[in-house]
Amino acid sequence: MIIIPGPNSQNISKEISKLTNSELARVETKQFPDGELYVRIHSDVTGKDAVIIDTQNMQNDSIVRAILLCEALREEGVNSITLVLPYLAYARQDKKFNYGEPVSIKSLAKVYSSICDRIITINPHESHIKEFFTVPFISGNAIPKLAEHAGVKLEKPLVLSPDKGAVELAKSAAEVLNCEYDYLEKTRLSPTEIKIAPKNLDVNGKDVLIVDDIISTGGTMATAISMLIEQGARCVIAACVHPVLIGDAINKLHVGGAFEVVGTNTYPSEVSKVCVSTIIADILNKQ
Amino acid sequence: MIIIPGPNSQNISKEISKLTNSELARVETKQFPDGELYVRIHSDVTGKDAVIIDTQNMQNDSIVRAILLCEALREEGVNSITLVLPYLAYARQDKKFNYGEPVSIKSLAKVYSSICDRIITINPHESHIKEFFTVPFISGNAIPKLAEHAGVKLEKPLVLSPDKGAVELAKSAAEVLNCEYDYLEKTRLSPTEIKIAPKNLDVNGKDVLIVDDIISTGGTMATAISMLIEQGARCVIAACVHPVLIGDAINKLHVGGAFEVVGTNTYPSEVSKVCVSTIIADILNKQ
Repeated sequence: MIIIPGPNSQNISKEISKLTNSELARVETKQFPDGELYVRIHSDVTGKDAVIIDTQNMQNDSIVRAILLCEALREEGVNSITLVLPYLAYARQDKKFNYGEPVSIKSLAKVYSSICDRIITINPHESHIKEFFTVPFISGNAIPKLAEHAGVKLEKPLVLSPDKGAVELAKSAAEVLNCEYDYLEKTRLSPTEIKIAPKNLDVNGKDVLIVDDIISTGGTMATAISMLIEQGARCVIAACVHPVLIGDAINKLHVGGAFEVVGTNTYPSEVSKVCVSTIIADILNKQ
Repeated sequence: MIIIPGPNSQNISKEISKLTNSELARVETKQFPDGELYVRIHSDVTGKDAVIIDTQNMQNDSIVRAILLCEALREEGVNSITLVLPYLAYARQDKKFNYGEPVSIKSLAKVYSSICDRIITINPHESHIKEFFTVPFISGNAIPKLAEHAGVKLEKPLVLSPDKGAVELAKSAAEVLNCEYDYLEKTRLSPTEIKIAPKNLDVNGKDVLIVDDIISTGGTMATAISMLIEQGARCVIAACVHPVLIGDAINKLHVGGAFEVVGTNTYPSEVSKVCVSTIIADILNKQ
């Protein structure tokens, strides 16, 4: 096995190369002034099982880079290609709501399925996207790692997910912290007023951990945090796997009252404190 | 036939829709703050022959948009998809020079061949890239249009290409202007001095038109122009199909002595004065 590090996954790649006892390839990547990418693999890959690790925080640039890296590896006659995309771009565009819309992740799944032999990712937004791939699609769960990180700061923990759809994430964190979990429900009190509160539990006197797969603008999460504090929560930590955190999202969360905002390094950001390399290495070592 | 206009090909698309007597679809495209694209086709396309027109001056964004648009069209059951990419990104990455390099345009050709039924482009850098496609690949030639545009300003015309490889472009312009053509040759006079001059002809007293498929940084072209003026050229016009013109390229060419810099609208720029819509419409009307 030889690890092919992408430009935004250098640290994860080095960790995984150690954890899997694999060679780390020397890979050159650059962007020309007109926006085109150039890639070159300097290490000998012929006949080897190549594992590209390149998280997709650069969105369309990341997608094209995956296409180029796979072509370069095929040209040199690798035995197989595993594409590790810790953050999978377009995973949220997983349904068609209106006439004339593409299921964007489905169209990209077709592309990935034609260029590699296997996909590994961390907490895609919806698990049903697996069906769009015709190569094995394996996803790791980083929520337990986030719970471990936050756990040391929570005396009387309670885990919440921002909505019913993500309650499995809350369950996965609660198992680590050995505590109760619930999901947040939004109730409209009047045309201008909403209430956000746990469906069944009471946060009064609790140290709350809110977990989600992704925090993007942070707007709803910030509102939820301030309401939980009003409801008596002692402390609220906002944790997500992919800290996309557009614009002033981090500040919004702190203004809302978050004690800490934490994410993993699937998406490089200032709150990417939890490393997913052991999760990926475990998958690679097992299969 | 229904024309699906891309965001940077709105004018070309409208012209082509007129020239081919085709319906013009209403297409919504936007970019989310994180960089992901969204597309939606609002017109009824079911059972129709769709023609996407979306030049690739946005490089990787353009490539992903083509993937999304094709998926949206397939979802709605179009009869066929023609992908018109007036400027084809990555067409210059058409050879492998070193171990570990991809033939980038080959990897993208595989993707395009899997999502559409036919490709139309204008003056790709090398014609051999056609072989990378498994769907019909048709290229139009915009050089005669550029020669017509420049011709009215040239009393004693002479056409040159920047190198031997592009001499066919010079020939194609010379046929329109009914004049002689040649290519430029670079001779190293000393370690610090070079001479650029036509291989066989004399530019003294001539109005020179230099034609190329693409002007990128404009450095070599600017040097060539100033040397041709030293050699007695009365006037030099720099014409290219795809005016990529990175950074201060246009200014460089004017400082070098260019009377005019002109390109087509395959690549939106301030010198995109020649429209390629009739060339594309002719191809669409014939086939």
